[in-house]
Amino acid sequence: MSSTEQFKQAVGVSTVLAQIAGHASHTAFSIPGPIEVSDEVLFANAHPSMSHVSPDFIPVFGDCIRMMRQPFLIAGSGTLGWDQVASNLVEPGENALVLHSGYFGDSFADCLETYGANVDQLKAEIGAAVSQEAVADALKKKKYKLLTFTHVDTSTAVLSDAKAIVETVRRVSPETLVALDGVCSVASEEIHMDQWDVDVIIAASQKGLGTPPGLSILVASTRAIKVFNSRKSRPTSYYSSWKKWLPIMKAYESGKPSYFATPPVNLIYAFHASLLAITKSAPSLAERYELHREASRRIKTAAKDLGLKQLPLDPAFAATGMTALWYPDGLGAGDILPRLAKKGIIAAGGLHAETKDKYFRIGHMGITAVEKTRGDVDTVIKALKETLAEAAAEK
Amino acid sequence: MSSTEQFKQAVGVSTVLAQIAGHASHTAFSIPGPIEVSDEVLFANAHPSMSHVSPDFIPVFGDCIRMMRQPFLIAGSGTLGWDQVASNLVEPGENALVLHSGYFGDSFADCLETYGANVDQLKAEIGAAVSQEAVADALKKKKYKLLTFTHVDTSTAVLSDAKAIVETVRRVSPETLVALDGVCSVASEEIHMDQWDVDVIIAASQKGLGTPPGLSILVASTRAIKVFNSRKSRPTSYYSSWKKWLPIMKAYESGKPSYFATPPVNLIYAFHASLLAITKSAPSLAERYELHREASRRIKTAAKDLGLKQLPLDPAFAATGMTALWYPDGLGAGDILPRLAKKGIIAAGGLHAETKDKYFRIGHMGITAVEKTRGDVDTVIKALKETLAEAAAEK
Repeated sequence: MSSTEQFKQAVGVSTVLAQIAGHASHTAFSIPGPIEVSDEVLFANAHPSMSHVSPDFIPVFGDCIRMMRQPFLIAGSGTLGWDQVASNLVEPGENALVLHSGYFGDSFADCLETYGANVDQLKAEIGAAVSQEAVADALKKKKYKLLTFTHVDTSTAVLSDAKAIVETVRRVSPETLVALDGVCSVASEEIHMDQWDVDVIIAASQKGLGTPPGLSILVASTRAIKVFNSRKSRPTSYYSSWKKWLPIMKAYESGKPSYFATPPVNLIYAFHASLLAITKSAPSLAERYELHREASRRIKTAAKDLGLKQLPLDPAFAATGMTALWYPDGLGAGDILPRLAKKGIIAAGGLHAETKDKYFRIGHMGITAVEKTRGDVDTVIKALKETLAEAAAEK
Repeated sequence: MSSTEQFKQAVGVSTVLAQIAGHASHTAFSIPGPIEVSDEVLFANAHPSMSHVSPDFIPVFGDCIRMMRQPFLIAGSGTLGWDQVASNLVEPGENALVLHSGYFGDSFADCLETYGANVDQLKAEIGAAVSQEAVADALKKKKYKLLTFTHVDTSTAVLSDAKAIVETVRRVSPETLVALDGVCSVASEEIHMDQWDVDVIIAASQKGLGTPPGLSILVASTRAIKVFNSRKSRPTSYYSSWKKWLPIMKAYESGKPSYFATPPVNLIYAFHASLLAITKSAPSLAERYELHREASRRIKTAAKDLGLKQLPLDPAFAATGMTALWYPDGLGAGDILPRLAKKGIIAAGGLHAETKDKYFRIGHMGITAVEKTRGDVDTVIKALKETLAEAAAEK
């Protein structure tokens, strides 16, 4: 059976699969990644074993590469994208500037330092992103090979203005490479890589891209590849080395197998199923973004009506795919999260070291936002309302 | 529903799953990894999305850690195990000795050099493993921090004598760490880590461990962890850093969640299902090894009867989980592999750079060897016989 036929069949049997597996009764799941995954994607993840060099698998891998526009697709978590950037685009002793809008800025800086970069961080206050003035000032003071920022920091739900950051870089220090950490933004926040002139987008399978975790996804611009090709020293990682992976991705894209390390075959099938839904099916990509904005507006408005304050200090800093909310005065994780869970909503606690016990996070990416018939957004809002009423009544 | 209940249910529905998905008609699959995976494992891989910090997932991850005896379980391919060894156990400028019995020796050496090791390789002729005399001589000439060898080199099907290698090391240079690359041997070749005094075993999910690819599995001895803890410099990789992963594995083992990078949740469920089958079900581990030996004997005997010669020069060098065979005189890949495929057997071509067009490889690990009712070994033997007869008749 061809893989296309198998996918057609998968769509047909997904309901059966869900029923026999008891998936239909699965608790609605609302953390900012891993996110809920469609039955079609889960089914593809259960694809029978397949050789990574077989004629059935090659076009599936090739399709993923084409649909993501020549990415690196490597078995690993989102974190591996940092290693790719740090070990391929920066040489030991070169300068990197990290814009910090939460937990993940510190980690990316740590990763860059591991591979020998000299790192400076610009830190915003909690709930804010670094200002363009601060970015411009830093770029004027020192020559940076690379600037990185977290598009949506999962720890704070703070959204950075990607377009403005690249504009500032191109105005003040045009050769500096710009890496956008989009693990928590790709497919839920609008990104226009070419138009905005972003050099690297780092993603992972388990958030907006709607696939189980385990796949590191990275797209590099022509400029980034050129900088990589003109390195003086060898890449400082083996597993993350683009020298190894670039020929592999090119081979599969052109319909030929090639080997460096075994690709996560089943996850590639699952990713393929999700990419088909995102890029080739209704709703369109533009409509999907709008559905994400609508879900976000509804949840944020409901939270506001309930007297809950967001971590992001300004609506301009608030992510679309997730919401971070301070616990109300006098209430904490123990009052809120277990009650939400009882009502079928698994939310996440805080993650930012300084304030992690004072807030919680709700994810609304992928099918939770896009497939209205699931009713996930309604369930979240209803559960929030009831939880706050119960918690207040018991205090 | 608890995860245990879900697994029980999974076993019950696997037949249904196979039928509705058309998996029953799936071509028998006989390359040396990825290998055929049981329906129970595939079903677990289709587990609905689950938070990596949820009370349902923590015991599953914890079970895997206990069943594998405190491993590092990280999203990545088997190759990532080399990075773990090279970046955690060797400091820049230290010496490493790589025993080369095929393609993977060169690659491991390349990986070690990437992270700053001074590498010497001892190369055996094609079809052989390095002799103990050569190992002893090398260890006498220079002090090595680490010795690595490929237990079964997937490119040649050459098995190295793990027990003898560690004995030689402990006799001549007792402090040298010994890393066994067991990607193609764990669960199909007998390994006694404590008894033989091996320091590191590198594995991956998609071979003898019977799980889809995407999980790097590494077990380190107390000696190895002690050497790691006394490093003078920081680990030279970020994503592979045991400084990051050790607390995570310890936390999950003790029933608590912790975060460094998102674990590949679905693959962990799949791995759990496979480990339950391997370590807690009939046949026992000892019986499983015997079933692997039996499958290997049958295929190697049939090949010999057909006049096919193995790459391994001596039966002592021949792996149990796979067989590498020279094409008969006058025949090549085009004569053999497509005919095998038509008969339902996907075999693999050669991989060793010098001779890759002159031989092919058959895998017989996991359920292919253990579940006799599948009839995989019979199918392989029958297909081989018919293929050779047809190919000879047409020449």
